[in-house]
Amino acid sequence: MLTTDPYDDDKLREECGVFGIWGADTAAAVVALGLHALQHRGQEAAGITSYDRNWFHSHRAVGHVAGNFDEDHIIRQLPGDAACGHVRYSTTGESGLRNVQPLYAELSSGGFAVAHNGNISNARTLRQELVQHGSIFQSTSDTETIIHLVATSSFKTLLDSFIDALKQLEGAYSLVCITPEGMIGCRDPLGIRPLVMGKLGDAVIFASESVAFDVVGAEFIREVEPGELIVVNDKGIRSLHPFAKIAPRPCIFEHVYFSRPDSIVDGQSVYSVRKQIGAELAIENPVEADLVIPVPDSGTPAAIGYAQQSGIPFELGIIRSHYVGRTFIQPGDKVRHLGVKLKHNANQALIEGKRVILVDDSIVRGTTSTKIVEMMRDAGATEVHMRIASPPTRNSCFYGVDTPKREKLLAAQYDVTGMQDYIKADSLAFISIDGLYRALGETGRSNDHPQRCDACFTGDYPTTLTDQDGLANVTQFPLLAERVT
Amino acid sequence: MLTTDPYDDDKLREECGVFGIWGADTAAAVVALGLHALQHRGQEAAGITSYDRNWFHSHRAVGHVAGNFDEDHIIRQLPGDAACGHVRYSTTGESGLRNVQPLYAELSSGGFAVAHNGNISNARTLRQELVQHGSIFQSTSDTETIIHLVATSSFKTLLDSFIDALKQLEGAYSLVCITPEGMIGCRDPLGIRPLVMGKLGDAVIFASESVAFDVVGAEFIREVEPGELIVVNDKGIRSLHPFAKIAPRPCIFEHVYFSRPDSIVDGQSVYSVRKQIGAELAIENPVEADLVIPVPDSGTPAAIGYAQQSGIPFELGIIRSHYVGRTFIQPGDKVRHLGVKLKHNANQALIEGKRVILVDDSIVRGTTSTKIVEMMRDAGATEVHMRIASPPTRNSCFYGVDTPKREKLLAAQYDVTGMQDYIKADSLAFISIDGLYRALGETGRSNDHPQRCDACFTGDYPTTLTDQDGLANVTQFPLLAERVT
Amino acid sequence: MLTTDPYDDDKLREECGVFGIWGADTAAAVVALGLHALQHRGQEAAGITSYDRNWFHSHRAVGHVAGNFDEDHIIRQLPGDAACGHVRYSTTGESGLRNVQPLYAELSSGGFAVAHNGNISNARTLRQELVQHGSIFQSTSDTETIIHLVATSSFKTLLDSFIDALKQLEGAYSLVCITPEGMIGCRDPLGIRPLVMGKLGDAVIFASESVAFDVVGAEFIREVEPGELIVVNDKGIRSLHPFAKIAPRPCIFEHVYFSRPDSIVDGQSVYSVRKQIGAELAIENPVEADLVIPVPDSGTPAAIGYAQQSGIPFELGIIRSHYVGRTFIQPGDKVRHLGVKLKHNANQALIEGKRVILVDDSIVRGTTSTKIVEMMRDAGATEVHMRIASPPTRNSCFYGVDTPKREKLLAAQYDVTGMQDYIKADSLAFISIDGLYRALGETGRSNDHPQRCDACFTGDYPTTLTDQDGLANVTQFPLLAERVT
Amino acid sequence: MLTTDPYDDDKLREECGVFGIWGADTAAAVVALGLHALQHRGQEAAGITSYDRNWFHSHRAVGHVAGNFDEDHIIRQLPGDAACGHVRYSTTGESGLRNVQPLYAELSSGGFAVAHNGNISNARTLRQELVQHGSIFQSTSDTETIIHLVATSSFKTLLDSFIDALKQLEGAYSLVCITPEGMIGCRDPLGIRPLVMGKLGDAVIFASESVAFDVVGAEFIREVEPGELIVVNDKGIRSLHPFAKIAPRPCIFEHVYFSRPDSIVDGQSVYSVRKQIGAELAIENPVEADLVIPVPDSGTPAAIGYAQQSGIPFELGIIRSHYVGRTFIQPGDKVRHLGVKLKHNANQALIEGKRVILVDDSIVRGTTSTKIVEMMRDAGATEVHMRIASPPTRNSCFYGVDTPKREKLLAAQYDVTGMQDYIKADSLAFISIDGLYRALGETGRSNDHPQRCDACFTGDYPTTLTDQDGLANVTQFPLLAERVT
Repeated sequence: MLTTDPYDDDKLREECGVFGIWGADTAAAVVALGLHALQHRGQEAAGITSYDRNWFHSHRAVGHVAGNFDEDHIIRQLPGDAACGHVRYSTTGESGLRNVQPLYAELSSGGFAVAHNGNISNARTLRQELVQHGSIFQSTSDTETIIHLVATSSFKTLLDSFIDALKQLEGAYSLVCITPEGMIGCRDPLGIRPLVMGKLGDAVIFASESVAFDVVGAEFIREVEPGELIVVNDKGIRSLHPFAKIAPRPCIFEHVYFSRPDSIVDGQSVYSVRKQIGAELAIENPVEADLVIPVPDSGTPAAIGYAQQSGIPFELGIIRSHYVGRTFIQPGDKVRHLGVKLKHNANQALIEGKRVILVDDSIVRGTTSTKIVEMMRDAGATEVHMRIASPPTRNSCFYGVDTPKREKLLAAQYDVTGMQDYIKADSLAFISIDGLYRALGETGRSNDHPQRCDACFTGDYPTTLTDQDGLANVTQFPLLAERVT
Repeated sequence: MLTTDPYDDDKLREECGVFGIWGADTAAAVVALGLHALQHRGQEAAGITSYDRNWFHSHRAVGHVAGNFDEDHIIRQLPGDAACGHVRYSTTGESGLRNVQPLYAELSSGGFAVAHNGNISNARTLRQELVQHGSIFQSTSDTETIIHLVATSSFKTLLDSFIDALKQLEGAYSLVCITPEGMIGCRDPLGIRPLVMGKLGDAVIFASESVAFDVVGAEFIREVEPGELIVVNDKGIRSLHPFAKIAPRPCIFEHVYFSRPDSIVDGQSVYSVRKQIGAELAIENPVEADLVIPVPDSGTPAAIGYAQQSGIPFELGIIRSHYVGRTFIQPGDKVRHLGVKLKHNANQALIEGKRVILVDDSIVRGTTSTKIVEMMRDAGATEVHMRIASPPTRNSCFYGVDTPKREKLLAAQYDVTGMQDYIKADSLAFISIDGLYRALGETGRSNDHPQRCDACFTGDYPTTLTDQDGLANVTQFPLLAERVT
Repeated sequence: MLTTDPYDDDKLREECGVFGIWGADTAAAVVALGLHALQHRGQEAAGITSYDRNWFHSHRAVGHVAGNFDEDHIIRQLPGDAACGHVRYSTTGESGLRNVQPLYAELSSGGFAVAHNGNISNARTLRQELVQHGSIFQSTSDTETIIHLVATSSFKTLLDSFIDALKQLEGAYSLVCITPEGMIGCRDPLGIRPLVMGKLGDAVIFASESVAFDVVGAEFIREVEPGELIVVNDKGIRSLHPFAKIAPRPCIFEHVYFSRPDSIVDGQSVYSVRKQIGAELAIENPVEADLVIPVPDSGTPAAIGYAQQSGIPFELGIIRSHYVGRTFIQPGDKVRHLGVKLKHNANQALIEGKRVILVDDSIVRGTTSTKIVEMMRDAGATEVHMRIASPPTRNSCFYGVDTPKREKLLAAQYDVTGMQDYIKADSLAFISIDGLYRALGETGRSNDHPQRCDACFTGDYPTTLTDQDGLANVTQFPLLAERVT
Repeated sequence: MLTTDPYDDDKLREECGVFGIWGADTAAAVVALGLHALQHRGQEAAGITSYDRNWFHSHRAVGHVAGNFDEDHIIRQLPGDAACGHVRYSTTGESGLRNVQPLYAELSSGGFAVAHNGNISNARTLRQELVQHGSIFQSTSDTETIIHLVATSSFKTLLDSFIDALKQLEGAYSLVCITPEGMIGCRDPLGIRPLVMGKLGDAVIFASESVAFDVVGAEFIREVEPGELIVVNDKGIRSLHPFAKIAPRPCIFEHVYFSRPDSIVDGQSVYSVRKQIGAELAIENPVEADLVIPVPDSGTPAAIGYAQQSGIPFELGIIRSHYVGRTFIQPGDKVRHLGVKLKHNANQALIEGKRVILVDDSIVRGTTSTKIVEMMRDAGATEVHMRIASPPTRNSCFYGVDTPKREKLLAAQYDVTGMQDYIKADSLAFISIDGLYRALGETGRSNDHPQRCDACFTGDYPTTLTDQDGLANVTQFPLLAERVT
């Protein structure tokens, strides 16, 4: 078996996208469209929970939004004018239906549905305590911890219980909840993961990225602020700031790779930032060559920026198939590098005899880079220079991004020269961390008060990592001993 | 649409069958066979949870055991030498996957899987209290209440917590649990629902009926006693009697209809008891006629008993199709009584010009009886006499049997003469309550200390009915406000 | 793997049932009901073709009628006031969709749909000639030969071409065809397979058995005569007898096993004939015993006849499960004879210490009989006597019945004493061939002019067997070299 | 319902891609990979037939190659060292399984499997004659005509019969056949549709495009010549030219849109040709603007060519979603142009305040162009200029391309000014027909002896169109009166 699964890419993976709406007819249909626009944030499963002022209605499925939520009869089973939804890329081994969000619980105050983007870095520790006191978990998701904290809080009102729960959390969370008392959107004090607020007529929307507003024709209002909690109900919109104020550190990788180029993140056009990264890269790491070739599709904006800055022509030297499936069997040894060829093919007529600059957004394990370099050489390239639109990725993320174990990261094993040898490129260069901050409009990284979470590059984690510390020599898995088929 | 679904029959329905085994290779395969033999106790869904001494493995499915648990790849996903299983006929409106048993919880003591036959008559009241204290329910099943009581018990050991939980329950329960500390089988103090213990080599089995032992080649040991709790593990078998001793009252309807004729229930052959009921019926309610015809298949043993006692020949006057499906559309008014005809057809050549006695086990709504009587007349019967192998069913069951609302029961609306008119029979007679007890080997019903639960006939419920009392004017449904599709 | 598939029974199998109607609204719905009543004649696949006077509409499926043809949206896709249908038990190895009938062809005269019960015993020889002349076959079914003969006939009208085709056929065929010129029902000159005609309002029906009329509320008119061809269209009903008249020989096994007991075949009640066979059997082969036990369900009428004649009580000594699936995996050697136990279980409380007479309709391979005898002994029977309601089955059928190869038939390998030893019964007896004819109302078999086709018992085949003769040393398979998955 | 189906695009659609191999282990796996690389030529259905020197094995499915042919168990059911396959975009209303290729027939010479790219323009006329003589068609595909012509040919050998059949055909066909005598690849005398030959070790391959060789690691040998028939078997490769030599006219639209940019067609790099078209377009139709924006993805190479020629920056002004599904329901009128937005989204931050040039490959109905122009304006573009990399598409194709009826083609309704008004662009320009030929390396179109089939632009059809002429006033459909569900 050889995989051609896009998720098996040599990429970091955002875990989740969230979307919620309060006050719109056919709310679930709007959520389905919004989730479709956020599909790049999680391709393994999707779910929607609607609320018709009496009942909550949920549909969760493994697979894409299209195919699971595009049919009339599904949407009709999700009535109500409020709904939230979630797309998910599972990070643990377990991608079963029981972890598909929104999670739902019947609290003493009534129903409670929650969709979560991020990762609670003390979830395991909290979970252990909750189980000791009689809470029964049904999933292996860290998000379920939040629900049980709310359920067992000694506060009287749902809102107080919810804030009580949040205060015990550590890590990253952008949450959208639907309750009988209204829709709640909130973002952790550091604002690690994004969350934006919009308007569709009188209805209010929360979404992970502004691109979800475009597809439904909604209007962007503003970002939800780090540490802000917004309650939307029929009485209006109410903003709370229940946490002590600290300097925010939103994830820098949203600009590098996660977000769609047509989104506005932290007030900046992702496409423009990526082009600017490409330009900075061309300034920092110039090389004489005939062609600038993007590694499709994520490397394209930086490649355009590199080409415009350097004056070297931008060309489609690698053609990407639109019809990528999961796996194909391999018909014998004659076929080399099948996986990468199913997805990418060299445009040989263009490349033959040329010196090429490949531009990609990042190197994770280095497997794809190695194959692409070789593919260029097989197609007759005389020189292959690789330019990367982010600094070397040396550290795992514990805030809702799927990273390989640290020891699998190429940049954790080699210095840049070693990496260049590994991928067999004629030259390899990464943008500097300050160059990256410059592309974002800063003068550089403030090492005293870093403006972003850049732990994957720097190892400078903005929170404690309770579970990691406590579980150093503990296996990752046995949250639930039941395996369901 | 006209239904030909066997479950839509005009019958009371046993809700569940349970089966568990400890200490056998491929335990799940044995459970699958045992559940297949118990399929008549619940046809809507089935589930098996196995335990391999590290992990629990569960598969639950809507539908029959055959078709869901007969394939190798499913059984291979259920490894371990211990397993329990459940077949279910859902009584509430909700037959979704989340209610399919065994239910599983991760307690602080480890995994806990439970299969339940019966109904907890104070489950709703207990549930409300548990939710107030922060328990989050995931199903609408009364069985989940037991799990949360165990989880939140202040006792230290699992066994003490489990007994603590049982003591708060009211109603009927035969339970089989799989835990890291062993398999637990137990029966409520009144022993309302059956549970038997058997042996397959060194492995111990619990099952709802002895017929499940036959199919797997196991040996019958004994009944689990009312109020008994048996723990089976690698150290052996340990019997506990944690409850105050009271006189048992096992369900009399197991003999009338629920159990298979080849089972031994309460030490008696079900087939022999049914034949004896038929014989008593012939003595109590004789009539001159040409043929004794069973309403297939449940009326057959009583019809044989009636025929042998009366000397009137037993004949197959109604042919039952083996190929019953759920629904067929009706091609216009020309086709009358389509549902019943798809399932039953009169053997017209036999019936024409004859006086017939129909023997059936019970009358619930009267719909089938009406159609069968008419079918006999259409086939040319000159007289149609109906004899019923149980007293009139006048009351709902709250102990794990699906009964229509009281007002739908024909015997709650009419006296016997009225019922005879309703079904348009030339005569109608039921066995007397004392006749029924006589067929079971008693001299009659002891009205002071009734030997059985016969509430469906007498209205004499052996327990308080807390939920019924408390919820008199409350809708039955909103245990969970989430509807999942 | 152990099978519990009912079709894997140790029984001969009728291959097919057919049903057609002309002139009724929602014709396809009527056909679906009729096929459901004929399901016992073929359980592997079903198909319906309707005709709306412009288009033909077909749905074919592997599986039962219920489950494939009971839903509204399927029937709505089969519009028109004429339709025919087919249920099929495949006899060759190939049970793919391409062999599921009705077969359809677009002839120069228009559409032509045909459903066939029987087997053309020179189909292979005809096929070879047709292929030589350019006909392209799409199935491995003998029925397709008929279609190509019609298509390539030099006659001008469809009816002439059809009769031209029939005249080249040898073997057994009851056909129902739908064409723009009307519905055609016809039966081969010997009338080997049954076909009856009925009425539903103004609509005319053809069906394999009268029981199909009962379920749709239609009226029985008469049998289609051997060698008769009936054309039904809007102008009326027209009967033709295109063949030279010969003495008919309808299949005797329809009475023994194939037909439903509530059908009228050749003017006789199948149930009455079977009871009479049981009575003859009791006269010919009496034995002292305590119980008469039917091997369910096919042995039941003969067992009732045997019991009434002998005065020995009829009892349900074997309980048959209603929930039979296809296969279960076997959990180790502890479980013996799993297949038969899943389907049949001894009623041990009844049998223990008794001398029993088992009554079954036939013995084919002897596998089930062996297991049932052993099951009786395991349950404590002191003597086990087997009585069979047909003569020994010694020969294969080539007329549309699935028989094992001759060398697999127990009666082809042993005499009765040898068979008795094989199945380990205390005694074994079969009804005589004359006894069987007597039960049918004859004085015995006329050896000069046998009244029935009884080749399976006598080896006296009423037609030549061209394919068998020609293909003596040829493999059965390669009609089509394409295998479709 | 709003569709986002990629096939519903406002594009012409190639109907088919073919691939065959002789002499490779696991031939079917190679075919699956090759078809995957040809998926853009037909996305509705796919099929593979393998040949193991005894049996042919076929699997056909509706849907993509990935998902239907990527699993081991499917490929294992397709054994043999020879195989051919087909991807299909159905042009008639009927996309049922019976039309999915390869088609297979059992001829008197043995099995015959054929995969066809193209369209036989006298298929209907030939079919009518064949049916008159007794041929029975099973599909509505024109390809089946070829098979029946072979089957009924009076020639003795398969090869002679096949050539006899081809000589009766009119229109476009690139065929790959698998027979016991070898693999046959052939191309119609005009070479309208492409076909190339390659090598994988000792195995020979035919494919529609060279890109299919890249993915399997095969080597390009040469094009199959127009009018050439090549037989490949264990004895070697044999080339025949059975037709009178005429000047070839390969389809020009393969370069404009159908073929993948990384393919070599007619000896030319598709990517280079498309860039050159863009450059010619910039020369013929310059305009002052700020950005050149491709309509993704098919407009991208021409847009790069346009940008390089004009010096105006190439930018991603439209972002295409990778996750396009079929349909989504629309949640009320607030959401305009949902279909196009799900697939394409404006990169508003880039476009606002800019004069943009949109480059697309063609305009068919004009629906997408209209929406894209409006999307640009909504995003703040001050001017929107549309440039099209082909001449106006004014005529239907009858050679295997799905074109709307002529009256639906925007260019058949309006002149360029009218089209510009229709799509509401500030300017609209198409490349000239001579410009297109220049981009292909010609000096222009030779009107006396056109070098290509360009009938869609010019109406100059290179063959007679027998069916079109004869059926002028005949409905397109009733090839088969049976509709199968």
